[in-house]
Amino acid sequence: MKNKLNIVPFVSVENMMRLILDRGIENCMEQIAAYIEEDFRRWPLFDKTPRVASHSHDGVIELMPTSDGIDYGFKYVNGHPKNMKDGLQTVTAFGLLASVDTGYPVLLSEMTVLTALRTAATSAVATKYLARKGSKTLALIGNGAQSEFQALALKRICGIETVRLYDVDPTATQKCAGNLKNSGMNVIACTSPEQAIEGADVVTTCTADKQLATILTDNMVGAGLHINGIGGDCPGKTELHRDILLRSDIYVEYPPQTRIEGDIQQLDADHPVKELWQVLTGEIEGRTDDRAITLFDGVGFAIEDFSALRWLRDALQTSDRFQDLDMIADPDEPRDLFGMIEREKTRM
Amino acid sequence: MKNKLNIVPFVSVENMMRLILDRGIENCMEQIAAYIEEDFRRWPLFDKTPRVASHSHDGVIELMPTSDGIDYGFKYVNGHPKNMKDGLQTVTAFGLLASVDTGYPVLLSEMTVLTALRTAATSAVATKYLARKGSKTLALIGNGAQSEFQALALKRICGIETVRLYDVDPTATQKCAGNLKNSGMNVIACTSPEQAIEGADVVTTCTADKQLATILTDNMVGAGLHINGIGGDCPGKTELHRDILLRSDIYVEYPPQTRIEGDIQQLDADHPVKELWQVLTGEIEGRTDDRAITLFDGVGFAIEDFSALRWLRDALQTSDRFQDLDMIADPDEPRDLFGMIEREKTRM
Repeated sequence: MKNKLNIVPFVSVENMMRLILDRGIENCMEQIAAYIEEDFRRWPLFDKTPRVASHSHDGVIELMPTSDGIDYGFKYVNGHPKNMKDGLQTVTAFGLLASVDTGYPVLLSEMTVLTALRTAATSAVATKYLARKGSKTLALIGNGAQSEFQALALKRICGIETVRLYDVDPTATQKCAGNLKNSGMNVIACTSPEQAIEGADVVTTCTADKQLATILTDNMVGAGLHINGIGGDCPGKTELHRDILLRSDIYVEYPPQTRIEGDIQQLDADHPVKELWQVLTGEIEGRTDDRAITLFDGVGFAIEDFSALRWLRDALQTSDRFQDLDMIADPDEPRDLFGMIEREKTRM
Repeated sequence: MKNKLNIVPFVSVENMMRLILDRGIENCMEQIAAYIEEDFRRWPLFDKTPRVASHSHDGVIELMPTSDGIDYGFKYVNGHPKNMKDGLQTVTAFGLLASVDTGYPVLLSEMTVLTALRTAATSAVATKYLARKGSKTLALIGNGAQSEFQALALKRICGIETVRLYDVDPTATQKCAGNLKNSGMNVIACTSPEQAIEGADVVTTCTADKQLATILTDNMVGAGLHINGIGGDCPGKTELHRDILLRSDIYVEYPPQTRIEGDIQQLDADHPVKELWQVLTGEIEGRTDDRAITLFDGVGFAIEDFSALRWLRDALQTSDRFQDLDMIADPDEPRDLFGMIEREKTRM
């Protein structure tokens, strides 16, 4: 990457896909997970704030900023469930890194694809620390846009070998099974959530309905299970029956955000939850009992996007999968913005 | 502009300068002022929030979102006073418009240059409604990056004919006078603020120091003056002596933000201030007495950036001063993000 301060490298969707293919999608998620672990271990030094949300009738637009004091990052992300029927993405995103020292942007990137990778990488980090040792079988409830990433991240990072798929829409399951057929995983398409969860060590729920839904009911959840509940990510959207929550050891990213957006919005505001980052630093213990039910109530937090953007910036040191954007005014004399415009006349 | 939803038009610094030169800078500011007036008149329907600021030792990075229910806009802007000595801009910015209906971005633009225009246009709107009728002479205290824009916007929109310049740094005054020499204005370089303000109908203070400074003292301000105090725009940064504030009718953009950032941070939290938009709608009277001192304590508000972005989007309907950015993932099937990446292999 060049160091001209007025030029901001931009990673388009096409370049993001090619960068991922250059390196291998599982490698990328493993690398992003390492950046997430690094940032979770230094969690207290980050500027943390619940996302800034603009709600409308059909959806929400959010800005998710954070900073570690050296870099500043934010993600723009929308959530519009009704988009799918119009052939549009439910969630699109882009993000930016900037230098805290100068305030100058240093990287702009699409983040629809990158968010899919970081979401799966985050689930894999949670699973690595919370699932029973030797977990081999994953049930994937919800076989939409996030499903394949979950399967491959948990395969690479947590040693998952078998994935059992279920979706209310069988064509989604077919799509997911097709995409995973050369993954080296044992892929089993199921016709009910009960069947999918049979024999599973880990469950990831990643459904997209914006409503208080119950994807998993209490009787389906046996001892020792680890659950990644990642489809509940806004007020009014949940996936797990309240009774499951009451039986689980609950781990979250950032409690003030998760209590509003996560499955725990069904619980009292003072229901005890643990913060995942403290498991990574060793401040609290994770799983201590093979019969415990652990739940990672993941809603997606700004620090994970920050980690993903840091990964991307470093990856671009050895890749040309970006374009230069002329995004920052760079007058010869900082106080002469007007003169800069006037002088442009001679170049037109 | 094209209507492919995954493609976002981007206006670079170069294209912004050329678009402005194509149309004439005074015309652009006059047009932007009309958009600002339009949005100020429908002020109550906007989502309003104080900006989301991340403060560090040397500066601040802010996100300024707003929405009118149809469009959503935000600006990224930094403020790093120490940048100037390193040959960097103190303030850089970019912004985005998105559709509230789909959450999809529809325009990305540099906003360092555009902010300069909207800031001057906003001062001109305030001056138009608050200065004495027939005001002809402007004193410009602070001859930095914003100064020429102030002079030309107030010339075009408010009928200012003479500008009297002062800056603590005489080279800044020379620069500003040089840039304005073919403007059709009578330009007078002064060597003290007292000299600059002599005979002025309107004063704009636009200095850049991040400290409690007193650019104008009480004895300098005579009856009937209108003041645009626009350089005080963050906590700890003011330009006017408190005694001036106590003698003035004070107009602001958004009180919760201005009380923290504006010159009125020197006053009690309940000191009466008026909201400029209400003067435009006629809900309150503006100037009623030729001897009154009126102060527009401008700090810059998200709605003005929104107005500027709306202007830009409309201007691009008849201009090719933009490039297409591949910023939004557009899978053939929204739930098949993974398949979209895999299929990119065949195009590499």
